[in-house]
Amino acid sequence: MTLDAFFRPHGVVFVGATTDPQKLGFGVARNLVGGFSGPVRLVGRSPGEVLGHAIHTSIEPLPDGIDLAVILVPAEAVPEILDACGRLGVRAAIVASGGFKEVGERGEELERICLEIARRHGMRLLGPNCIGVIDTSTPLDTSFLPPPGAQKGPVAFLSHSGATVAGVIDWARTQGLGFSRIVSLGNQADVTETDLLPVVAGDSATRVVTLNLEQVSDGRRFIDAAAASPVPVVAFRAGASDAGSRAASSHTGALAGNDVAFDAAFRRAGIIRVDSLEGMFDAARALAWQPLPAGRKVAVLTNAGGPGVAAVDALVAAGLSVDELSSTVQTELRRLLPPAASVMNPVDMLASASPEQYAESLRVLLQADEVDAVVVIIPPPPMYPAGTVADALIPVVQESGKPVLAVTMGGRLVDAAAERLRSANIPDYRFPKRAAAALGAMAFRASWTRQDHTPIRPTIHLGWNVDHQGWLPPSEAFDLVRAAGIPALEITVAASVGDAVAAADRVGYPVALKADIHGAAHKSDIGGVILDVADSAAVAEAFERLMKRARLAGSEVRGVIIQPMARGGLEVIVGVVRDPQFGPLLMFGSGGAGVEAAGDVAFAIAPPTAGDLEHLLGLTVAGRILRSGRGDAFNVAAVEKALVGVGALAEALPELAELEINPLVVRSEGVVAVDVRARGSVWPGR
Amino acid sequence: MTLDAFFRPHGVVFVGATTDPQKLGFGVARNLVGGFSGPVRLVGRSPGEVLGHAIHTSIEPLPDGIDLAVILVPAEAVPEILDACGRLGVRAAIVASGGFKEVGERGEELERICLEIARRHGMRLLGPNCIGVIDTSTPLDTSFLPPPGAQKGPVAFLSHSGATVAGVIDWARTQGLGFSRIVSLGNQADVTETDLLPVVAGDSATRVVTLNLEQVSDGRRFIDAAAASPVPVVAFRAGASDAGSRAASSHTGALAGNDVAFDAAFRRAGIIRVDSLEGMFDAARALAWQPLPAGRKVAVLTNAGGPGVAAVDALVAAGLSVDELSSTVQTELRRLLPPAASVMNPVDMLASASPEQYAESLRVLLQADEVDAVVVIIPPPPMYPAGTVADALIPVVQESGKPVLAVTMGGRLVDAAAERLRSANIPDYRFPKRAAAALGAMAFRASWTRQDHTPIRPTIHLGWNVDHQGWLPPSEAFDLVRAAGIPALEITVAASVGDAVAAADRVGYPVALKADIHGAAHKSDIGGVILDVADSAAVAEAFERLMKRARLAGSEVRGVIIQPMARGGLEVIVGVVRDPQFGPLLMFGSGGAGVEAAGDVAFAIAPPTAGDLEHLLGLTVAGRILRSGRGDAFNVAAVEKALVGVGALAEALPELAELEINPLVVRSEGVVAVDVRARGSVWPGR
Repeated sequence: MTLDAFFRPHGVVFVGATTDPQKLGFGVARNLVGGFSGPVRLVGRSPGEVLGHAIHTSIEPLPDGIDLAVILVPAEAVPEILDACGRLGVRAAIVASGGFKEVGERGEELERICLEIARRHGMRLLGPNCIGVIDTSTPLDTSFLPPPGAQKGPVAFLSHSGATVAGVIDWARTQGLGFSRIVSLGNQADVTETDLLPVVAGDSATRVVTLNLEQVSDGRRFIDAAAASPVPVVAFRAGASDAGSRAASSHTGALAGNDVAFDAAFRRAGIIRVDSLEGMFDAARALAWQPLPAGRKVAVLTNAGGPGVAAVDALVAAGLSVDELSSTVQTELRRLLPPAASVMNPVDMLASASPEQYAESLRVLLQADEVDAVVVIIPPPPMYPAGTVADALIPVVQESGKPVLAVTMGGRLVDAAAERLRSANIPDYRFPKRAAAALGAMAFRASWTRQDHTPIRPTIHLGWNVDHQGWLPPSEAFDLVRAAGIPALEITVAASVGDAVAAADRVGYPVALKADIHGAAHKSDIGGVILDVADSAAVAEAFERLMKRARLAGSEVRGVIIQPMARGGLEVIVGVVRDPQFGPLLMFGSGGAGVEAAGDVAFAIAPPTAGDLEHLLGLTVAGRILRSGRGDAFNVAAVEKALVGVGALAEALPELAELEINPLVVRSEGVVAVDVRARGSVWPGR
Repeated sequence: MTLDAFFRPHGVVFVGATTDPQKLGFGVARNLVGGFSGPVRLVGRSPGEVLGHAIHTSIEPLPDGIDLAVILVPAEAVPEILDACGRLGVRAAIVASGGFKEVGERGEELERICLEIARRHGMRLLGPNCIGVIDTSTPLDTSFLPPPGAQKGPVAFLSHSGATVAGVIDWARTQGLGFSRIVSLGNQADVTETDLLPVVAGDSATRVVTLNLEQVSDGRRFIDAAAASPVPVVAFRAGASDAGSRAASSHTGALAGNDVAFDAAFRRAGIIRVDSLEGMFDAARALAWQPLPAGRKVAVLTNAGGPGVAAVDALVAAGLSVDELSSTVQTELRRLLPPAASVMNPVDMLASASPEQYAESLRVLLQADEVDAVVVIIPPPPMYPAGTVADALIPVVQESGKPVLAVTMGGRLVDAAAERLRSANIPDYRFPKRAAAALGAMAFRASWTRQDHTPIRPTIHLGWNVDHQGWLPPSEAFDLVRAAGIPALEITVAASVGDAVAAADRVGYPVALKADIHGAAHKSDIGGVILDVADSAAVAEAFERLMKRARLAGSEVRGVIIQPMARGGLEVIVGVVRDPQFGPLLMFGSGGAGVEAAGDVAFAIAPPTAGDLEHLLGLTVAGRILRSGRGDAFNVAAVEKALVGVGALAEALPELAELEINPLVVRSEGVVAVDVRARGSVWPGR
């Protein structure tokens, strides 16, 4: 069944109604009967009346066509009511009651029972432990929140936190922000953010989706749902600092905290990530109200220098550009403005700027091909009320197909301007920074919609499966890397001094010796690497030393790896680890033993897109050095090939838990994997 | 003379008064006579009256004791009036008029004339092109801003931008924010931000100073003034994106943009830097109203999980820690709260939390040694009006010596709470992020006041001066570095093939050959470096090749530098460049040819403090690798010694414009400078 019944039910039964205005059950009844125009049956423990609607003490007889139930009774009583609703043909149930998974074992059991009942009746369940659903078009409000409730508007809002829904609805009114659909998700026993995302994004009243998330239940499906959204999606994620304690034994695993996976997933899905709720709704207003900019070139129109300079800073920080205007545009502006005005960009009309000068200058800027968007700054104008400036600007903005954002810098003196701009769907912000961040979000969305997001999937031919649970022997790990088309140093594992010397003689001196240890420790941490070993006598000595060190460190040692020395080049790390929510996560950055200390890494969903490769290389110091083209040239194409190869490995081998090449040495002629670690987990099919 | 007359004059003359309420001159007259209680003489072109005060058409006779003049007449008329004021004994003049330096050459000349007149009379001049001074204690308001003007309070505000003053005063009222002294600085012909900083910081009504800066006029004096401030200083700097086009010929010069110098200066001075005006006043309210935290350990008190998690994220991002509470504290909280409440930290009292539970839980947290500060979150409480929660919290906060910040998440439903909290000097914020940032600012200030900020100045003995204008010959540059106690590779400059081979034979093979080019180009950019040259024949060939390459690149080449090869180690860069505002600026980061591409550098004022060294090493990937202690150990002490050595060089040699060691190779046994460039400027004394 679809989830429409949660938003546009034919009729609603509410169980938990009361006439006591101090109780939440009164609030739900009030909001429900106060708005919804279809049949409503209120059920409670005592008879009575709410806004002229009778409270019945039994759920039966249920009027025809009632397909949504809202339940707010003590947790223990929920299963029975849910079952009754199911029997009576209800298709969707919102369980607002708390006392489930969030309070411990008994609650968890009750939640499981509720889910079973819902499944048995083919009923979808929202919650428990949520404050319900609001659809301002239907209209439907199943929350207990005090009136006046959410304003009607273009923003859909899904939130894991119910308190945040309450706070945001109340705050949004002060921002001129209206909502299409709001859902408090609660414990998500059945219906999740991923289920609802297409339903709210596809609603004709919605022009932007906002998400207040903590975790997501099925990461790849979430990415697909967000990427397919016809409207922009903005997300605030709480829980970023909870890095989690994944069983991290590779550098990649240790650094791939839960939040970097979210970051990579949001980027893949085209979700605009913000770091505050205010920032989310700042961006949402701009996205919902104004057209997307065609590019990143912004003009700033102001009547004072200082705020203009601050706006340029903020715009540049948000990834936009504020370039000097062409002489044609400057000449047009000169005609409108006093000689002392500045027309370079920012356009500073001076404190004397009249409403007409604001409007005409804006028109010139919006008509210029070189301008994709305009930020208009309105401090309290010394000579004219700010409201008259707003009045003059509005028709110019409305004629244009380009986005305009306003900065109304002040309080009481600019309130009228802010109000009029909002009524005309022109977003206003108190200071330049928030306007710039909102415009940055618009530019991100615009460029994302223009890009190709096809993952790059080279075909790789593997003649085997990884059936190890634990670390693979080095030769197998190296073979995996070679199968992915990545050159790797030759390695020989020697179990005896004699084997070691023979291998070194064959490879040619100098050689590197590394303890072949089993388990999670990094070789370099236990002194398990000796480089530049010059002759057979030194090999013999190094062999004994490494075996001894490994044993002293308590590692299970299987022998010593002999490799030719890799000279020169830049050491990078390429790794992949499986994130529990989002699947394979690719890592790139500065390699060597100090990977974690350096912290110079970036992540992407594997297999990566061209945009992901750009991100991995552009965001890291290692990537920037590779691409600098200075000094010895580095073969960047070979690095990208290694990244997509490792991504393909992770996709081809679901039993590969993590794989890490560190270092991958990059030179002008190509790359070579010098050390490889790979870990398998039990293959689900076996 | 002191600058007190600008804030607490005995009497004021205002020239430019008018009875036309549409004119700015009316606004100044109204604000002046409406507040100031001493003698005021209004002077204008036409006689009349403003609020019962006569407008005279001549400046004379000036009543006794008038020591401050406010002038708002056309620019051309200012010099004459200024001169008259000076003759009549006025000691301080605010020139509000525009039309000076900001409009071109004639304005610049007028400004110079005004300054000469002021100097001749021993008069201090504020402006021109400013909106004046407000002192809410005196009270004095020389601005033309519409009433009700600035609220009285503990925040001093200095701003280069006048429009920003207008916007902020109007906006601040909506935030419950009051001011002690406000100064619009204008063109700063005479009085600068640095002059005024001690005057507003030392005022007994001021508890925090806020700065809206673009440039500063005398950087080192500004740093000293801010560092000496008895109250915290918070600064927003506009113009950060204007990197400026310094004649940048070293990597250090190219990367040391104007804004990084500000960053380094602010850190040295203990100034809290914010990236928005909203953020500045968010921090200012907390700093002015609440005591500083003793440490960084924060407890979060909430009645809902979601906002609590968001608060933890934001606090951690602001450099604070939110650790699990001790079992003692948890037990105390358990006694107050329902079993399903969470007492780990965040303390989630659940939606049922009563005002008493809020208050008692807060008391427990504030009494715990393990808690330095508390963030209390108040979403619209489902059961109680938010105002009653605020009422219950206030006495607990006031009894405590620890800072408490509130998050009132909502709009109308939390307005009463916000208002009561503000009256009790408890700062409130709408969402957790802004509260966390404000608390982060408090923690920064608290830890700064506990640290030692003595610059580290090793004594260096130089037997010579740098008298070059331009790049020094390599041997002199290397000698400078050695004089600062930094080991450097031996170098020989060979002018012929024969000299080159002889030098290489002496040094021992393999050797490195580098073109000794004159001028700004980096050797590696023109292919001027050949490494690992193995024998005399190869040296001869490399010599010819380098000379040819250098000439092809158009460089003036003086010969070829012969050096032993430096093997292994980490390549870092240590440089110093002279910033026009703040003097010597030290740079540290990842070295090699790709320094600018990598962009892994940090800056500090030279000579550096211990905190600066911490910053340079902690903020860069190179520094973090050095300190990681993994793999081969690096001699961090030698790196720090090199940094303070280079800082001392810059201080000892004012004629040294820039110096850069790149790479400085770091190994376990120490550091060695492999390449050094230094540039002198004309020595002022010659």
